[in-house]
Amino acid sequence: MKALVYHGPGQKSWDDVPEPTIVAPTDVIVKMDATTICGTDLHILKGDVPAVVPGRILGHEGVGTITQTGSAVTTLAVGDQVIISCISSCGKCAYCKQGVFSHCLGAEGAEGIGWIFGHLIDGTQAEYVRVPYAENSVYRLPETVSPEQGVILSDILPTGHEIGVRYGAVKPGDVVAVIGAGPVGLAAIATSGLYGPSRVIAVDLDPNRVSQARRFGATDGVVSSDPDWRDQVMAMTDGLGVDVAIEAVGIPATWQMCLDVVRPAGHVANVGVHGKSVELPLQDLWISNIVMSMGLVNTDTLGTLLKMVAQRKIDPDVFISHRFALNDILDAYDVFADAAQTKALKVVLTA
Amino acid sequence: MKALVYHGPGQKSWDDVPEPTIVAPTDVIVKMDATTICGTDLHILKGDVPAVVPGRILGHEGVGTITQTGSAVTTLAVGDQVIISCISSCGKCAYCKQGVFSHCLGAEGAEGIGWIFGHLIDGTQAEYVRVPYAENSVYRLPETVSPEQGVILSDILPTGHEIGVRYGAVKPGDVVAVIGAGPVGLAAIATSGLYGPSRVIAVDLDPNRVSQARRFGATDGVVSSDPDWRDQVMAMTDGLGVDVAIEAVGIPATWQMCLDVVRPAGHVANVGVHGKSVELPLQDLWISNIVMSMGLVNTDTLGTLLKMVAQRKIDPDVFISHRFALNDILDAYDVFADAAQTKALKVVLTA
Repeated sequence: MKALVYHGPGQKSWDDVPEPTIVAPTDVIVKMDATTICGTDLHILKGDVPAVVPGRILGHEGVGTITQTGSAVTTLAVGDQVIISCISSCGKCAYCKQGVFSHCLGAEGAEGIGWIFGHLIDGTQAEYVRVPYAENSVYRLPETVSPEQGVILSDILPTGHEIGVRYGAVKPGDVVAVIGAGPVGLAAIATSGLYGPSRVIAVDLDPNRVSQARRFGATDGVVSSDPDWRDQVMAMTDGLGVDVAIEAVGIPATWQMCLDVVRPAGHVANVGVHGKSVELPLQDLWISNIVMSMGLVNTDTLGTLLKMVAQRKIDPDVFISHRFALNDILDAYDVFADAAQTKALKVVLTA
Repeated sequence: MKALVYHGPGQKSWDDVPEPTIVAPTDVIVKMDATTICGTDLHILKGDVPAVVPGRILGHEGVGTITQTGSAVTTLAVGDQVIISCISSCGKCAYCKQGVFSHCLGAEGAEGIGWIFGHLIDGTQAEYVRVPYAENSVYRLPETVSPEQGVILSDILPTGHEIGVRYGAVKPGDVVAVIGAGPVGLAAIATSGLYGPSRVIAVDLDPNRVSQARRFGATDGVVSSDPDWRDQVMAMTDGLGVDVAIEAVGIPATWQMCLDVVRPAGHVANVGVHGKSVELPLQDLWISNIVMSMGLVNTDTLGTLLKMVAQRKIDPDVFISHRFALNDILDAYDVFADAAQTKALKVVLTA
């Protein structure tokens, strides 16, 4: 079969590789119908994620059709079309039993991290993929949801929802600022609306991104290259600051922006994947009554979000900026990696 | 009357000063029956809290008897013996209406900080004190609770409970580590027990403090000068770390100790008053699903804790290591400031 293989920093190719086979009785094999590329894949290609070894097939999002089932699988069958969660969870460990699937201790996630596709095992940017712990980690796709819509549910919608909105404890009436209006920031904006905030402010360096955030449910936008960006945000609150600041970039400057706009007793919810430490001014913050949260998605709300998508309460189509055939994935990487020029959000690849 | 007056860094004296008078219709005047000294008072005396100006009477804890009431006061009367909350709350502002009394925006807390006694207005280390917003900020002392017990409810019991235990979200079965077994750390230990943790581990440099923490409800103790202190803590969990780490010192090293022992998806609850920034290794923590909280006490649980004290579910007497007459407050300061030698916890002064 064909697959997108990582060959070390800066190197990838669309290779002929052996088809996967059932390894554990809880596995299924899925023929991929649709997949996508994540910002994390670009990090891997820069060599920023050393746990990813050369030879690894990338990708952790997708929808596909089951072609084989392991002997222990009873609730899934060949022919079922399923959304593959970006988190693989054994269902048996202490963390899975608490719903903290992001830190699954199952044998396949040897590091206590539930994100293993395209990381510790071969991923979904391929014609076929082995899905471990299948019954705990996939969701059957309803007929009313398309495969390319389902792809948006593998990672970014649950990530924005769980790590941004739920960890940030967005509640009715809140003013929410989302710092960074890329795909995951937009997912936080889109799912904030489920909790009745009074305002959702998209903040980004790129005026185009700020503008398009309104299609995702942002009520207001601020271009953060404006010298008075903070004043603009504060003017949209009662002058005290936002109730919830969601960090969706992953650099020290945007973390600091969250601290700059959050009110006393507010929440800073970090969604961004960071590569550096930050300075935390505890001498000022100890008295602030703010809560800071962060983490990897559990996808424990994937099923809930899927119902919302099926009922047209959330529209995943707006996240899709480009479509390619799976065979053209190298072109798709070029478009996605040059998002500043191409305005790419999610690029969806279909078989 | 006599009062403990701050005269600039390093300087205090027991002075003759004018008795306070009613200023606002919501004030009462209280004759102090019992008060105490807080670690914050020592910080002020070092000059670390510039908002405190020379001439200020220190102290923010105490129990006293009402001698005058303002014209708007209807639910308190002359002769009532009351616990004075360390937080003064107007009851009318946006924060008070949400129960976030720590950030009261009332005119007396011009900085949006509810701690004003011995800070922005004259405090409780005196024969008389003016109590603003009295009906929102004092609790009538039941006959079954002594004035010196009530003093422990002004600040440290609610602080340990609200900022340590409740912000840390201690729940049944949790393993809790309290880093720093001084008065506020011991208050967190004592109130953790209300939430059914499986273990409460006291961690301190001082073996004597670790040992005495058992009297407050610690089930285990670790002396943090032991090179393997972390291994000792981890051995008391399932190897993954503690569910809740409570910081009760206020220095970078003890903040880091919390990060060193907290498990994925655990809580770090900062109670300490910090004077320096810390480094936050977001490159490691972004994926950790931990929650970090901090803040100034609201004393919204003072009434609840008072009921627990009245019913002998919490024993405030164990916090009191030394007793003095109010007139001997300068001696009490010497004993409290030299806690390493004197083993002082709370020193209570009675009129």
